[in-house]
Amino acid sequence: MSRFWSDLVKNLTPYVPGEQPKVDNLIKLNTNENPYAPSPKVLQAIAAANGERLKLYPDPNALELKQAIAEYYGVEVNQVFVGNGSDEVLAHAFQGLLKHSKPLLYPDISYSFYPTYCKLYGINQEMIPLRADFSIDVEDFIRPNGGIIFPNPNAPTGKLLALKDIEKLLKKNTGSVVVVDEAYIDFGGETAIKLVNKYDNLLVTQSFSKSRSLAGLRVGCAVGHPVLIEALERVKNSFNSYPMDLLAIKGGVAALQDKDYFNKTCQAIIDTRKTTTEGLEALGFEVVASAANFVFAKHPDKDAAAIFQALREHAIVVRYFNKPRINQHLRITIGTDAEMQALLDALAKILPTV
Amino acid sequence: MSRFWSDLVKNLTPYVPGEQPKVDNLIKLNTNENPYAPSPKVLQAIAAANGERLKLYPDPNALELKQAIAEYYGVEVNQVFVGNGSDEVLAHAFQGLLKHSKPLLYPDISYSFYPTYCKLYGINQEMIPLRADFSIDVEDFIRPNGGIIFPNPNAPTGKLLALKDIEKLLKKNTGSVVVVDEAYIDFGGETAIKLVNKYDNLLVTQSFSKSRSLAGLRVGCAVGHPVLIEALERVKNSFNSYPMDLLAIKGGVAALQDKDYFNKTCQAIIDTRKTTTEGLEALGFEVVASAANFVFAKHPDKDAAAIFQALREHAIVVRYFNKPRINQHLRITIGTDAEMQALLDALAKILPTV
Repeated sequence: MSRFWSDLVKNLTPYVPGEQPKVDNLIKLNTNENPYAPSPKVLQAIAAANGERLKLYPDPNALELKQAIAEYYGVEVNQVFVGNGSDEVLAHAFQGLLKHSKPLLYPDISYSFYPTYCKLYGINQEMIPLRADFSIDVEDFIRPNGGIIFPNPNAPTGKLLALKDIEKLLKKNTGSVVVVDEAYIDFGGETAIKLVNKYDNLLVTQSFSKSRSLAGLRVGCAVGHPVLIEALERVKNSFNSYPMDLLAIKGGVAALQDKDYFNKTCQAIIDTRKTTTEGLEALGFEVVASAANFVFAKHPDKDAAAIFQALREHAIVVRYFNKPRINQHLRITIGTDAEMQALLDALAKILPTV
Repeated sequence: MSRFWSDLVKNLTPYVPGEQPKVDNLIKLNTNENPYAPSPKVLQAIAAANGERLKLYPDPNALELKQAIAEYYGVEVNQVFVGNGSDEVLAHAFQGLLKHSKPLLYPDISYSFYPTYCKLYGINQEMIPLRADFSIDVEDFIRPNGGIIFPNPNAPTGKLLALKDIEKLLKKNTGSVVVVDEAYIDFGGETAIKLVNKYDNLLVTQSFSKSRSLAGLRVGCAVGHPVLIEALERVKNSFNSYPMDLLAIKGGVAALQDKDYFNKTCQAIIDTRKTTTEGLEALGFEVVASAANFVFAKHPDKDAAAIFQALREHAIVVRYFNKPRINQHLRITIGTDAEMQALLDALAKILPTV
């Protein structure tokens, strides 16, 4: 603490991301990265852009990337916002669209960055408990609010909310913005982007970090009504004119264009999720039905923190949240088949010992 | 305007960056980019990192880049902060270090993003007029304040404040943070980083966009006392865990390591600035003595806006600010010798006609 700090800084609770261990030969199943490399076409596009042009500022509007996203989803360019990872996009949405006198609503078990944004921007918030099975009851969100946000599929549970339930919520909640955070939508969900032309208060955010294997490049986007996008642009242009570097713009465009690679790698993860779920269940775990590239699993007899530690000793890192309601669960990213087999083998050894 | 916008968004005045024209064969002297390509070693480092590793998140702490900066300037790693361009670094400094009940002070002629940040974060500010010759009188800043910021060399004037004057200010202003924004320091100034171990309220920000030819990659940094850096980290970790992508980290490190290329290209720009200044003076312009990679010039008899327009018709873009005190000046980026000769030739044709 220092007298030089603003009052805000003194009261922040910074987000702690999953560890990025600097150890080799680790099986890394803790931050929901994709086990498959980015599309070769992405690497080619980056290589082609890696030259003298880097001396110039990128297009501050990243129009090429916006156009590619608009085309991909069949929307207009002015319905698309892009940012330096979806966390940045979410930050601008919190500041520009979700800060009102009434509280922002989000599930009690959800992306743990949301309360951090609320502190950063002084947003009044109210956590809505999920049902015991971790599902969202949209009726619980029908109450006075200044905005609603939830991940779909939810994190860290992996549980999907059906599009018809989202539409039900949108029909009843017309006075504030509903942000659907679709970081994991490509692993089995149906995007709410198809509803943006029908509901002017719907903003959908997506990430290129998971399904497009580009966590290292930092690309995220939002799609919604042009008036919502304009709010994000106003914040962005008051914060950083050029958040997207040239290589991220070019790589992002190429990622959207290589649909075959995208479909193939997403399907591989969905398949591996199925065998992993079966393997975990065979070991006695209860696994939440997941539409994401991770599973959320609990062993009825074994302590999650102890399993987490023991796995680490086997050079396997998963994610453990020491939080109410979920401190007996582990969130396990879906890796390759070989990685998941190694996990199951390690668990078979570990479980009798913990 | 929309009922969905936060009150903040309704009142923002977004920054308008210099145009990034999508026209070929333009001589682009409007956004202070470097006319020389990035170091070949930077392009090699990016090429080497452009692979499967992009599927993983980058180091959220960008330690490798912080270490390279620390080594370069002879400071400790915990005295270094890095961000997605120096605009992002400045934004965090405004929010975390420059927002206090007393007003933030900055020169009336200065980087035009400062008032935008003040609006974004609700910072009380007071503009301190420069002297008539555009120099900063540090005595004018000795008054109650919650922070002080100025570019050095100043933008858009190019005028340098001597290190001894900065030290004079630091000695008298011990109660608030002084941010020295050194985006252009490498073109003839002496960095204030050598003072950070002596003054715990000094924060120096730098950019890789100008002197390191990397505007397209988005790399910026701040150096100061660890307590000031901690404030920036707290804001950053409440906003975006991974602002620096892998390629920006690797490219930034390589840029710092290739000192020969850096010295050579900086010197070329300094030499071209001299010949450009002489050429402009021969055409009757008054040119502010510049320590930056641009010159700020005024013609006593000709209207700056008219010259700006006429140059555009000759496919040469410079920067014109329609603002009090400087609306008869043009800010002209230093390009290659050939580009500057083309500018001088065009001006020789234009001046009799405007």
